Amino acid sequence: MGKKVRRIGVMTSGGDSPGMNAAIRAVVRTCAYYHTECVGYYRGYQGMINGESVNMNARSVRNIINQGGTILQSARSKGFLTEEGRARAAENLKRDGVDAMILIGGDGTFRGGQVFSKEHGFPLIGVPGTIDNDIYGTNYAIGYDTALNTVVEAIDKIRDTASSHNRLFFVEVMGRDAGFIALNSGIGAGAEEILIPEENLGLERLLDSLERSRRAGKTSSIVVVSEGDKIGKNVFELADYVKKNLPNYDARVTVLGHIQRGGRPSCFDRVLASRLSVKAVELLLDGKKDLMVGMLNNEIVSCSLDQALKGKHNINKDLLRISEILST
Amino acid sequence: MGKKVRRIGVMTSGGDSPGMNAAIRAVVRTCAYYHTECVGYYRGYQGMINGESVNMNARSVRNIINQGGTILQSARSKGFLTEEGRARAAENLKRDGVDAMILIGGDGTFRGGQVFSKEHGFPLIGVPGTIDNDIYGTNYAIGYDTALNTVVEAIDKIRDTASSHNRLFFVEVMGRDAGFIALNSGIGAGAEEILIPEENLGLERLLDSLERSRRAGKTSSIVVVSEGDKIGKNVFELADYVKKNLPNYDARVTVLGHIQRGGRPSCFDRVLASRLSVKAVELLLDGKKDLMVGMLNNEIVSCSLDQALKGKHNINKDLLRISEILST
Amino acid sequence: MGKKVRRIGVMTSGGDSPGMNAAIRAVVRTCAYYHTECVGYYRGYQGMINGESVNMNARSVRNIINQGGTILQSARSKGFLTEEGRARAAENLKRDGVDAMILIGGDGTFRGGQVFSKEHGFPLIGVPGTIDNDIYGTNYAIGYDTALNTVVEAIDKIRDTASSHNRLFFVEVMGRDAGFIALNSGIGAGAEEILIPEENLGLERLLDSLERSRRAGKTSSIVVVSEGDKIGKNVFELADYVKKNLPNYDARVTVLGHIQRGGRPSCFDRVLASRLSVKAVELLLDGKKDLMVGMLNNEIVSCSLDQALKGKHNINKDLLRISEILST
Amino acid sequence: MGKKVRRIGVMTSGGDSPGMNAAIRAVVRTCAYYHTECVGYYRGYQGMINGESVNMNARSVRNIINQGGTILQSARSKGFLTEEGRARAAENLKRDGVDAMILIGGDGTFRGGQVFSKEHGFPLIGVPGTIDNDIYGTNYAIGYDTALNTVVEAIDKIRDTASSHNRLFFVEVMGRDAGFIALNSGIGAGAEEILIPEENLGLERLLDSLERSRRAGKTSSIVVVSEGDKIGKNVFELADYVKKNLPNYDARVTVLGHIQRGGRPSCFDRVLASRLSVKAVELLLDGKKDLMVGMLNNEIVSCSLDQALKGKHNINKDLLRISEILST
Repeated sequence: MGKKVRRIGVMTSGGDSPGMNAAIRAVVRTCAYYHTECVGYYRGYQGMINGESVNMNARSVRNIINQGGTILQSARSKGFLTEEGRARAAENLKRDGVDAMILIGGDGTFRGGQVFSKEHGFPLIGVPGTIDNDIYGTNYAIGYDTALNTVVEAIDKIRDTASSHNRLFFVEVMGRDAGFIALNSGIGAGAEEILIPEENLGLERLLDSLERSRRAGKTSSIVVVSEGDKIGKNVFELADYVKKNLPNYDARVTVLGHIQRGGRPSCFDRVLASRLSVKAVELLLDGKKDLMVGMLNNEIVSCSLDQALKGKHNINKDLLRISEILST
Repeated sequence: MGKKVRRIGVMTSGGDSPGMNAAIRAVVRTCAYYHTECVGYYRGYQGMINGESVNMNARSVRNIINQGGTILQSARSKGFLTEEGRARAAENLKRDGVDAMILIGGDGTFRGGQVFSKEHGFPLIGVPGTIDNDIYGTNYAIGYDTALNTVVEAIDKIRDTASSHNRLFFVEVMGRDAGFIALNSGIGAGAEEILIPEENLGLERLLDSLERSRRAGKTSSIVVVSEGDKIGKNVFELADYVKKNLPNYDARVTVLGHIQRGGRPSCFDRVLASRLSVKAVELLLDGKKDLMVGMLNNEIVSCSLDQALKGKHNINKDLLRISEILST
Repeated sequence: MGKKVRRIGVMTSGGDSPGMNAAIRAVVRTCAYYHTECVGYYRGYQGMINGESVNMNARSVRNIINQGGTILQSARSKGFLTEEGRARAAENLKRDGVDAMILIGGDGTFRGGQVFSKEHGFPLIGVPGTIDNDIYGTNYAIGYDTALNTVVEAIDKIRDTASSHNRLFFVEVMGRDAGFIALNSGIGAGAEEILIPEENLGLERLLDSLERSRRAGKTSSIVVVSEGDKIGKNVFELADYVKKNLPNYDARVTVLGHIQRGGRPSCFDRVLASRLSVKAVELLLDGKKDLMVGMLNNEIVSCSLDQALKGKHNINKDLLRISEILST
Repeated sequence: MGKKVRRIGVMTSGGDSPGMNAAIRAVVRTCAYYHTECVGYYRGYQGMINGESVNMNARSVRNIINQGGTILQSARSKGFLTEEGRARAAENLKRDGVDAMILIGGDGTFRGGQVFSKEHGFPLIGVPGTIDNDIYGTNYAIGYDTALNTVVEAIDKIRDTASSHNRLFFVEVMGRDAGFIALNSGIGAGAEEILIPEENLGLERLLDSLERSRRAGKTSSIVVVSEGDKIGKNVFELADYVKKNLPNYDARVTVLGHIQRGGRPSCFDRVLASRLSVKAVELLLDGKKDLMVGMLNNEIVSCSLDQALKGKHNINKDLLRISEILST
C-alpha cells in the first residue's frame, strides 16, 4: 500500500448523467467527514491537463444532490490520449498536492484512467456513471434509472397522442451498443416492439408483429428502437419501410435525443451515487487503488478497473420474452 | 332561434391537445346538469360520417380530467371534405336525434363546421383546442399552456447536459405557422435566441448573437426554433450552417416532436377547458349557434365562427424584445 | 422626476414563490442591458438593515430561471417595522450607492416599501410575487400558476388512492384570506366541493352535496378546503363532522403544506416574472417610482403602490357555479 | 400437483400502490398469451365475498400500465376475517369457474390468502405490492420505488422554501413499522437527520446534530421522520420539542400523507410489476401454489407464502452511516 492519502481529486468525464452531482457531493462530504482535502477538476481529463481545479468543502456542494448535469462539467479530451497530455495532467496533480483521484464516468473514462495510473502511479477509483448502463461490475450505473423514467414519461406523452389518432410511433432512445434503455423503457412504456443492438429479430418479424397487433384490435402502437439496433436501419428508414409494407398505418418518428441525459435524478440514482461515492473515498483512505466501485445484488462492492474494462455487462434476454408476452 | 336543443353531440378533431378530455367532461357534465342528453362521436368528422357514436352521461367521464389525449379520439377526415360525406354525417346526426354539435379543435375543424352548418343547418359551437394557439377570438386555446410546460421541462433537461458540456443546442418546437410556442417557451427556458415564422432576423444576426454570447462568457446556449421559422432552413441545416461559421461551437439538434401534444393538462388548461365547455353548452341551450367560445382578458366570451376564421391571432412582438434583453 | 438612476437594488421578501428567481434574473439582466448597476439584498428588508448585499451582473443569475425559491432568500423583518430599522436600511442603501429599489413580494412587502419611500424618498417599484394571488392590480402574481399545478398534481395522486378505496378526502390548500388556489385547483382537480374564505355555504350544504354525489354513483370524492375557509372549522374538524354525520364515508385528511411554495416555476410564471421585471427596471430608468407592475388582460401595466394596497383582488365567483355544474 | 389451471382470478388488496395496474395488466396479458381465462375481482377479498367480478382479456387492460391506483380497486375486508366470509368467497370462485388466484398486496393480504388456501384448497400466488417495502422474500415491492420518487420530489420543493427562509422542516413520511421510505428518501433528499422505527438514537442526539449543522454553516435543514419512529413522539411534538430547545430555529412540519400512495409508477415499478406477474401466472400454469414471487438480486424468484410471512425484511443499517457521513 502507498503513502497515506491526504488530498483527493474528483472529476466527471464522458457523457454526463443525472446523479453525477449527487456523486460529487458524496465524494466531497465524505472527504470532509474524514478530514481529507478535496479538489475538483473541471471538464474531466481536460481540466486535469489545463490545471483547472477548485478546492471543495462540505458547503461547496450544498443543494446539488437534486440537480441534473455536473457542476464540474464534463468533456472528452483529445489531449489525454497523448503521453504529453497525461504527463501534464500528472504534473498538475502533483503541484496541487493531490494524492489520488476519483473518476466519475463510463468505459472511456476508466480506460483513460488505467493508462494514466500505469504511467504515473496515481491511485484511482472509478465510479460508474452513464445512462447507457453498459458497465461490467455493477448492476446499475448512475443515471440509468433516471433516464428510464425520462423515457417512459416521454413515451407516455406520445402514447396519449398515438391513442387519440390510431398511430404507430417509432421512438428512438439512446444506447448505441447496449439495449438496456430500450429494453427496460420499452417494457415500462408498454411498447409493442423493442429493437436493440444485441438481437436481430429481422424486419419480417416486425411486420408480422405489427399486423398481428392490428388484427388483435390494437389501434395504436409504439415501437422503441435503440440507436444502435441490429437491423441496422436508422429509425427513419425503419418507419419508411413499415409505411411501404403496411400502408394502413399512419407511422411517425420521434428521436428523444439529449433530454435523456438531463433532469433531476431519481431517488434511486441519488442513493446509488451516494453509496458508491462514500465507498470510493473510503477505499482510497484504506490504501486501495485502481478499482471500480459498483452495486451488485444491492451490495456495494468493487472490482479491479481491468476487470471492469474486460468484462461485459449483458442485458437480461428474458426481458425480450416478457415484452413479447405483454404485447399480446 | 331554432327549436329547443334536447340532445347535444360532441367530438374532438384535428391534432389532439392536452385538456381535450377536460373539455369533453365539461360538455357531458353540463348537459347532465341541464338534463340534456349528450352523444359523443369518435374520431371527429370521420365518426360522424361512419355513425360511430356513444351515449354519454356524467359517469362516462369520470377520472378523465387529468388525462392527456382525447377519449373520443381524433382524426383528419377526407370524407368530410366532400358533399356526400357531410350529407352522411347529417343523416347520422338526425338518426341519433342530435340537435346541435360542439366541436373541439382548431381552425381546420371550425372551417369544416362552418360548411356543414350552412349546408345542413345544425347549430354548432366551436371550442378552441390546439397547442399552436393560433386561433383568433381567444387569448388561449386548450392545450397551449401544457405544451409550453412540456417544452420548458424538456429544454431544462437539455440545458443540464448543455451546461455540462459547453454545447450549443438547437431545439425545434411545434408551430408551423405561428411562433407562440417558440416565443414563450424560449423566454421561459432562457433561450439565447428564438426563431419564429413571423419574423426573419436573418442568419447574420444569429451568428453575431451567438458570438456575442460566447464572448460575454456564456459557455452553453439554447436556440429555440419554430418548425416554420422564417429563415426557411430546417433545424438541421441551421445547425450545420452555424457549425461551419462558428467552428468553436459543439452544436447539437433536438426535435421535440410529438411529446408536445401529450401529457397531463396543466391546471390552467383544465380550468380553461372547463369554463369554455360549460359556456358552449349554455349557448346552445340558449338558442345560440355558429359561435366559437374563447377567453379574452380572463372573461369567457364568444364570437361568430366566421370572425374566428377570418381573424388572425398575432404573437406579441414585444416578447422578442424581452427575449433579447434577457439573453444579455 | 428625480435624478438619473445608476444603481438599482433588488430583494425578495415575504413568503417565497416559484418564479422569484426568474424575476431576479430579469431585473439583473435588464440592468446589464441598460448598463445600469445592480445590487442584490439578502433576506428582504432584514438584509437591507444588516447591509448584506451582493453586486450582481448578467452571469450572477445564470441557470436560475428554472429554480424554485429565491437565491436572495427571503424573511419577515421585525426591525423594518421600526423607524430605526428603516433608517439603518436607508443608510445602507446610500452607502452602497443604490438609487432605487425593486421589491419582489406581496402585500406586506409593498406596505413596508410604501412607508420606507415616504420616509426616505427612495424610488421603488413592486413586483407581485405570491402564490396566494391576492394582489390588486394584476390578474396573476408570480408563483400562483405553479402552485396551482403543484396542487392539482398532488390531488391527482390522492385521487388515485381515493378511487382505489372509495374514499372521501379533505385536502387543505394554502390561502388564508383568499380562495384563488382552492377555487382554481379545485376545478382543475375535479373536486366535488370547494370551501373558500370568501363564501360560507354552510355545513348542511356540504353534507347534502356529498350525499347527492354518493347516490349519483360517485364512489370517491375530493373536497378542497382553503386554509381560511369561511365555515371556520379547520380541516380535521370538518372531516370529523362529516364522518359523524355520514358514517358510510371513509374520510381522510391531507394538508398539502409547504410543497405548494416550492418547485420549478411553470412556463407561465417564468414568462410573467420576466415581463414584469423588465418593466420594473424600465420604469425606474424612466424616472417613475412608487408603482407596482402587473399583468392585466395580458398587457404589462402599472398602478401606484397606494392603489395596489387599497384595492382588493376578488375571486371570480362564477367559478363556484362552474364547480357546482361540473361535480354533477 | 393439482388439476390443470384454466381460469385464473386476480385481485388487489390492502393499501394501494403505484404499479398495481401494471401488475394486473401483466397477469391478464400473460393469461391471454397462454390461452388461459382471467377474471378480476373488485375490492380484494370483499369482491370475492360479494361475487363482484369481471372477465378480463388483453384489451381490458390497455393504457393502464402508467396509471396509479388499481382499476380493480382495493379494500380491507372484515368479512374475510370470518369463516363464513371465506366460505362465501370460495363458493363464488367455484361458481365463476376460477381454478387459482393471484393476490396483489402486502402482508395482510398474504395472511388472508394463507388461511383461505388451507381451508378451501385454492392454489394461489402472492405478488408483493406495498409502498412500505416491508415484505420478506423480495428486495423491492411494487410501488416502493415510485413512492421514494414522490417523496424526494416533495422534499425538493420543501427545500426550495426551506433554503429561502433558513428554516428547519420536519417531514413525516409513511412507514409505520419500517423505515425503508424514510431512510432512502432521506438520503435521496439530502436530509440532515432521518428518524426511523428501527432505531432510537435519542432526542439529545437530534439536538446535537442540528446544532452542529447550524454551526457548520447550514442555514436550513430537513429532518425526515417515519410515521412510526422509535422516539415515539409524533412529528408535531418533535417539532415543538426542538423549537423549545433550539429557539434559533424556525421549525415547520409537513405530513406528506396519501400523495405517497398515488401517481404514475416509475419505470422500475412497471418493469418489476410486469416481471413478477408474468412469473406468477407461469407458476400457476406450472402447477405450483401458495408461493410469493419476488425479486432478489435482480432475479425473479419465489418462496413459500409461509416463509414470506415468517421472515423479516430488514433495512440496511449501513444507510444510517451513509446518511451521517453525507450530512457533514
